[in-house]
Amino acid sequence: MRMAELSRESGVPVATIKYYQREGLLPPGELTSPNQARYGAAHVRRLKLVRALLEIGGLSIAAVGEVLAAIDDSGTSTHGILGLAQHGLPMAKLEVTAEDRAWAMGRIGETARRRGWDVHPESPVVESLLGVLCALRQVGHEWVLDALDRYAEAADSVAEADVTAVARLGTTEAVVEGAVVGTVLGDALFAALRRMAHAQVSRRQFTG
Amino acid sequence: MRMAELSRESGVPVATIKYYQREGLLPPGELTSPNQARYGAAHVRRLKLVRALLEIGGLSIAAVGEVLAAIDDSGTSTHGILGLAQHGLPMAKLEVTAEDRAWAMGRIGETARRRGWDVHPESPVVESLLGVLCALRQVGHEWVLDALDRYAEAADSVAEADVTAVARLGTTEAVVEGAVVGTVLGDALFAALRRMAHAQVSRRQFTG
Repeated sequence: MRMAELSRESGVPVATIKYYQREGLLPPGELTSPNQARYGAAHVRRLKLVRALLEIGGLSIAAVGEVLAAIDDSGTSTHGILGLAQHGLPMAKLEVTAEDRAWAMGRIGETARRRGWDVHPESPVVESLLGVLCALRQVGHEWVLDALDRYAEAADSVAEADVTAVARLGTTEAVVEGAVVGTVLGDALFAALRRMAHAQVSRRQFTG
Repeated sequence: MRMAELSRESGVPVATIKYYQREGLLPPGELTSPNQARYGAAHVRRLKLVRALLEIGGLSIAAVGEVLAAIDDSGTSTHGILGLAQHGLPMAKLEVTAEDRAWAMGRIGETARRRGWDVHPESPVVESLLGVLCALRQVGHEWVLDALDRYAEAADSVAEADVTAVARLGTTEAVVEGAVVGTVLGDALFAALRRMAHAQVSRRQFTG
């Protein structure tokens, strides 16, 4: 197909497709004349993946480039690609004191031990969790962490279902797109369900 | 205490305190002369609550005013106040077609029935959940909803712990502040834990 059809098929404007090409996010088409190229189904798939990573995942152009490079490097394991997709996702960060950091790492370590999780202190996910713990402490609401093990158990249950489902999606591109969409929209899904459950529990506990 | 001390004690700048007073978020102090007023511990507590609602909860000034009015109206139940605090929280919304809406309400109804939840279709929480379901459908990732019951079960488990803990906080103001902080930072806490669990499950499933 020509560029115009690629744009229709993928729903991405021509100017945007050309921008992605300049940034190396989309391989060139097969040249059929000096000014014309032909594109295939692989280009449509790749464009949809790029859109999902940028718009749903909120990844930067550079982070998308890294994820795509990992996909195209046949030596990268599924675990490695999922890790890259995850680490590119935007996560809250917070400046914390050394004392707060030590306290938070202690709490995280205890919970991780009880759940059998490895903790990689250099991981952005650990850094993000650490920021949340310190924020709770700074605003004087450490009591939330009394339920840390219950939260971790719930997270484990959901994550098991997520990873099992995403692994079944088939192609590497589908798995990566699924991981990003599932991670980001899964957060929103859980947040909304938790609020519904709050309303129900509150109704039960506080009304007649 | 005088205004300057109220500012030091609460960590809120004088100009901001005056702005809150003009917006009706903070009751006037007791006048000791035409130009001077005295403030008490109740003012400090109220200021901290206003800050939590605005900065952590992301509520609008108008929404904060409604929550405070409910607190001050002795006829409002704890359940009613928690509902107001929750409904003031920012939630994602999405334009959806009537067909998508009907489909999403069907899915929500089934899951709610299995969990024994009431569904109030006019509630902003239901609207937000509905938006997430429709977003998943629009991007072609409905498979995430295969785990909807598992997500709902996890949300129930966490919400039970949340509401029980928050109810123990004592004063109505502490309960409201706790509900907002716990809801908003609880989202971030769960999201970070879910990513840690993803990494662990992926490691187990995809590496040797």
